[in-house]
Amino acid sequence: MQLVSQELQNNKAYDPVLFLRKEEQIEKYNGQGFETRLGNLEDSVSTLAKLMTYIDAVIFTAGSGGSTGADKTLLIDLDGAVKAMEAAAQNGIKRFILLSAFGAENRESWESIVPYYVAKHYADRALINSNLDYTIVKPNILTDDNGIGKIAIESFEDINIDRITRADVAKIIVTALDTPETIGQSFNVTQGNTEIKEALKQLK
Amino acid sequence: MQLVSQELQNNKAYDPVLFLRKEEQIEKYNGQGFETRLGNLEDSVSTLAKLMTYIDAVIFTAGSGGSTGADKTLLIDLDGAVKAMEAAAQNGIKRFILLSAFGAENRESWESIVPYYVAKHYADRALINSNLDYTIVKPNILTDDNGIGKIAIESFEDINIDRITRADVAKIIVTALDTPETIGQSFNVTQGNTEIKEALKQLK
Repeated sequence: MQLVSQELQNNKAYDPVLFLRKEEQIEKYNGQGFETRLGNLEDSVSTLAKLMTYIDAVIFTAGSGGSTGADKTLLIDLDGAVKAMEAAAQNGIKRFILLSAFGAENRESWESIVPYYVAKHYADRALINSNLDYTIVKPNILTDDNGIGKIAIESFEDINIDRITRADVAKIIVTALDTPETIGQSFNVTQGNTEIKEALKQLK
Repeated sequence: MQLVSQELQNNKAYDPVLFLRKEEQIEKYNGQGFETRLGNLEDSVSTLAKLMTYIDAVIFTAGSGGSTGADKTLLIDLDGAVKAMEAAAQNGIKRFILLSAFGAENRESWESIVPYYVAKHYADRALINSNLDYTIVKPNILTDDNGIGKIAIESFEDINIDRITRADVAKIIVTALDTPETIGQSFNVTQGNTEIKEALKQLK
């Protein structure tokens, strides 16, 4: 997710390394000053582990996207995510932040694109059952509007908003990195009334 | 799996109840003297649980089949199987036998139909992580030949046979029901040299 990379780059605390699938992405992001590594989530765990050296935390925001079929949903959104978890564990990386989907834990809420939710559901389960220090961020419908910096975590506030901006999701993910209260947490989130850092601290 | 039903019907110890998706299947199997229940693995866990009353053990051999897409693989082979596990657990049913695929535990062995193996892999994981008394049967390439009644369990014998008859797989599943050594076991199996009952007892 491009916005996450930019958030990380704007924060002096981090030296992001981008994991990318295409040569042209490598060129583009290198040109923007990012360190990059070329790989494919369809590769083996051991290959992924070799690409994850000198990394302290993994942020997994990859997705097969709406234009591919359910076969890629299985290979990338589910098995790709879990292979990344296993590769992280092999390398002794503890921290793992996973971008998931609103309501992925609750089958009754899956009204459309059900196969996608199935993949997210089982990737989330695998992370929760792992020994990693996980955070699972499950945003509602994503928009391209400007971020407002205020969110609602579903279990604390019920404000009947079904949207959140991609910019705010990127901020949530990067803020979670230095908010230990988010470790071991999986949460549904929308736009709301609470500052991101404050909302994340309430998770503990 | 039709052959499993016949094996059960031929064995006086069991009163099989078939879970079927289509009205015409219901008529056919009722005509053969089977008790049947009409349901769909895309239904909710609570609906499935209601269809699982007065049942002592679940044998899950359903599959979305080769003619449907990977979306059904996700919905049936993965989530359908796991919903059946959850429905069994809700009803206090402990015994659950799952038909899986040879090598489903080992990504390096998945040479073709990889999305199918991904679904099997995560269904197997869910069962292993459940509290059910599970057996996971992972046969190699299935044939329609006559059963020979002799098998090889991969961890005990390496006989370089990559096939097994559907009839023998049905016998393995039904034999597992009264072979307590199979509880908590997941095994790859091919045609071989050991009587089925004997081979299953070695699992403990």
